Amino acid sequence: MLSRTLTFTRMGPRAGISIATRSLSGVQGKIYPSASAAVADIKDGASLSVGGFGVCGIPENLISALSKQGAKNLTCVSNNAGLDDAGLGLLLQTGQVKRMISSYVGENKHFEKLYLTGNLEVELTPQGTLAERLRAGGAGIPGFYTPTGYGTVIQEGGFPIKYKNDGSGEVEIGSKPREVKQFNGKSYVLEEAIATDYSLIKAWKGDANGNLVFRATARNFNPDCAKAGKICIAEVEELVEAGTIDPDQVHMPGIFVQRLIVGKDYSKRIEKVTVAKPKEEKEGPSAATATRDRIVKRAAKEFRDGMYVNLGIGMPTLASNYIPDGMNVVLQSENGLLGMGPYPQPGKQDCDLINAGKETVTYLASSSTFSSSDSFAMIRGQHVNLTILGAMEVAQNGDLANWIIPKKMVKGMGGAMDLVSSGNRVVVTMEHCDKKGNPKILDACTLPLTGRQCVDLLITELAVFEFDKLKGMTLIEHAEGVSVADIKAKTKANFTVSPNLRVMQG
Amino acid sequence: MLSRTLTFTRMGPRAGISIATRSLSGVQGKIYPSASAAVADIKDGASLSVGGFGVCGIPENLISALSKQGAKNLTCVSNNAGLDDAGLGLLLQTGQVKRMISSYVGENKHFEKLYLTGNLEVELTPQGTLAERLRAGGAGIPGFYTPTGYGTVIQEGGFPIKYKNDGSGEVEIGSKPREVKQFNGKSYVLEEAIATDYSLIKAWKGDANGNLVFRATARNFNPDCAKAGKICIAEVEELVEAGTIDPDQVHMPGIFVQRLIVGKDYSKRIEKVTVAKPKEEKEGPSAATATRDRIVKRAAKEFRDGMYVNLGIGMPTLASNYIPDGMNVVLQSENGLLGMGPYPQPGKQDCDLINAGKETVTYLASSSTFSSSDSFAMIRGQHVNLTILGAMEVAQNGDLANWIIPKKMVKGMGGAMDLVSSGNRVVVTMEHCDKKGNPKILDACTLPLTGRQCVDLLITELAVFEFDKLKGMTLIEHAEGVSVADIKAKTKANFTVSPNLRVMQG
Repeated sequence: MLSRTLTFTRMGPRAGISIATRSLSGVQGKIYPSASAAVADIKDGASLSVGGFGVCGIPENLISALSKQGAKNLTCVSNNAGLDDAGLGLLLQTGQVKRMISSYVGENKHFEKLYLTGNLEVELTPQGTLAERLRAGGAGIPGFYTPTGYGTVIQEGGFPIKYKNDGSGEVEIGSKPREVKQFNGKSYVLEEAIATDYSLIKAWKGDANGNLVFRATARNFNPDCAKAGKICIAEVEELVEAGTIDPDQVHMPGIFVQRLIVGKDYSKRIEKVTVAKPKEEKEGPSAATATRDRIVKRAAKEFRDGMYVNLGIGMPTLASNYIPDGMNVVLQSENGLLGMGPYPQPGKQDCDLINAGKETVTYLASSSTFSSSDSFAMIRGQHVNLTILGAMEVAQNGDLANWIIPKKMVKGMGGAMDLVSSGNRVVVTMEHCDKKGNPKILDACTLPLTGRQCVDLLITELAVFEFDKLKGMTLIEHAEGVSVADIKAKTKANFTVSPNLRVMQG
Repeated sequence: MLSRTLTFTRMGPRAGISIATRSLSGVQGKIYPSASAAVADIKDGASLSVGGFGVCGIPENLISALSKQGAKNLTCVSNNAGLDDAGLGLLLQTGQVKRMISSYVGENKHFEKLYLTGNLEVELTPQGTLAERLRAGGAGIPGFYTPTGYGTVIQEGGFPIKYKNDGSGEVEIGSKPREVKQFNGKSYVLEEAIATDYSLIKAWKGDANGNLVFRATARNFNPDCAKAGKICIAEVEELVEAGTIDPDQVHMPGIFVQRLIVGKDYSKRIEKVTVAKPKEEKEGPSAATATRDRIVKRAAKEFRDGMYVNLGIGMPTLASNYIPDGMNVVLQSENGLLGMGPYPQPGKQDCDLINAGKETVTYLASSSTFSSSDSFAMIRGQHVNLTILGAMEVAQNGDLANWIIPKKMVKGMGGAMDLVSSGNRVVVTMEHCDKKGNPKILDACTLPLTGRQCVDLLITELAVFEFDKLKGMTLIEHAEGVSVADIKAKTKANFTVSPNLRVMQG
């Protein structure tokens, strides 16, 4: 696949256009002299919605100014918690945050420690639900129903928001259960809007009216956060003259933006610089890569021409290397990119263009970018045809667990709960047993669920299983040289063997 | 105010960009040879969501092809029903439509007749609710809560969807009541998603991947309709090479578009050509215009610097002529335009740039365009500060009626229910009595409500009243030479007289 780079001609000054020149005093007042002036009135106990995905598209200058300003007991709504020393991680270091509402915090070790020792309140919220709750908050919708999280602790309640900080490991605050309602025979979860006192967001360009344009996947949660705040404070890389942004190309109309600053000294850190490897450098086969290769090649057999596909981090992403020539498969990355291209050539990585794994990627001719709420509208609305993702456990009824090990690993569910609840085809790729050789395919999951009865197909290095709500779990393929008895010995679940059992494809 | 015209340089071919060239067979299959080929499989009884606002941005070629194709008993979800001889009006003429789900149908006399004689089923739905229901249908959200319509027939049910066609005027099918739920002490209405078998939409440009770009206010309902259909059929004015639309400027990612045609022979009719009048042509004062002028000038006193304002059709729109010099007031038009400029110079009108009254308008330096669901997110989410609109009746408790006279006038509520339910300031401008001299300010409304206890200020040519949920209705201003007794004689409502009563401002 060839890739294209971010070198478009955009929004140049337009000759010959008459532009209104009357005084815009009310609007001119949106521009603040500095980040510190813009955040000066944020008080202790305020709630903030903060844009960014990982550290891509975060309001660096505003966060930095707020860490100096010192407001405490903040509630921060943000998909991630930054890194230990970047993004919202800065406010965690200074102890300014009382509660985080996030979907994925796996990149911040300090965060995990604060939470597990009872020194931080955390509401983990599925990524698509988080984006939609923010959008709803901005749109005057107090609540909505979603399939995401039904039958999990998110809906059932009791998830530890705060542990006691006495080392007992006891839960001090647990999450509340969500109401459930049936629509057309399917169960949905009631989620409430999130509206905050302030939004801190980052855009690429802006004008004195507050009209904003985002760049590539640095858009992500910024539009949804912007709308959810009573006072939206935006930082931009460049202030352009009012009237030079084509009205059809304004991503964020000025009505949503109350304060604007021009940011300085952007570090625009990249969490995972990934680049295309020269062919000669590609790794030779090892035992581990052979196992992965077998799984990945089999997973690639699920692709069909014209499909829109979301691939999870790790093995699922590798499946894209085996899309057959001539077959068109469009990859969706839930941080806001459709038509995801391969890793860039060395030196061509762009901090604003990453995938959901925070890896640098490229554009293709089919590419488009969009906000997080629009991204999950695609997913939840069944426009994405296929999801391939990893798992920690799969149960014989199709239950899936892959997001948390209570009291040990608190990364968060990210977009996984939304992806598996949408009703689209869900294919799980995982190693058959854990590192100690214990089965990961079980009669019932022991870990908190990501989704209930959501797996359609499970691919391991030994076997392929099909799941059906009526027929249960069926072995349909076995690896070359692996017997049904071998598979049964390593599987702690009841399954039937297909009469058409065959050797694993791929 | 100066205006700018639609002559931007956009999306030219970009030199030096490497673009993926591998075969896109699955995606190339989206392009259909003709409108008739694209709609060929639409069957009797199908449901369609159809883009457009009035006849701006309607899929002309697809509607025309469908009228020739002949599928019957269609359910059409579309904000309007076209004109008698344009847009969906064509399918009404051929008797192909069983049910319309719309917000405003006042431009189609044939429609009104079909409905009132029991030959058409109609679900009138507030414009913002309609847009959000379509968005929800596309986003996998089965239901959501909105303040719009609470305490009206929309929530209470019993609105005639179909009259008997025996001339009896009896209702054959009535609308169902909506569930109500409280959030933070306020009542909200549960509205369900709309998903359709097909979407018929119109865009400006598109590529073989189905990526689309809309133009000006021809965007309107098209994005929301596109997402709501299982099969979205788009017509575009121009097919551009894949990869030439900047990914950040794609309005509708290709994942939402299944079929694409290039439309032919666009008529792109303008419902109301409005142009700037030369100064010498402006009308002299008549009795009618003097009354209106007094109301309009007083309404303009409600503007504040930096306000975002939505003005209803008629008198409210005229208030924008009296925005004081140096004050910045940004006008929002609910069909998808912020920063609405004045009427264009003669000959400069653009069929794609209209306001909610279907009048041709212009851009300002502050302008931006957006979809209908985004427009009502601004309104419902309290980002619009002030709404000024007309009324047929106002009650002493602040109830407002302005959208229907049962069995006589069936125009629909358009965006009015959303505008008055958002909790923003609502100012009503109307003549004090009807044409026969009967009071329009009443102890209780006799017509179906637009909103309950929603009016903050009422301005007539005789008086200004303030409304408060606790204090009720208070007379605060009287016109020069009009006594309180005069006002009482023409007002069938209880009101108190402010101790600070003064002569009408403006």
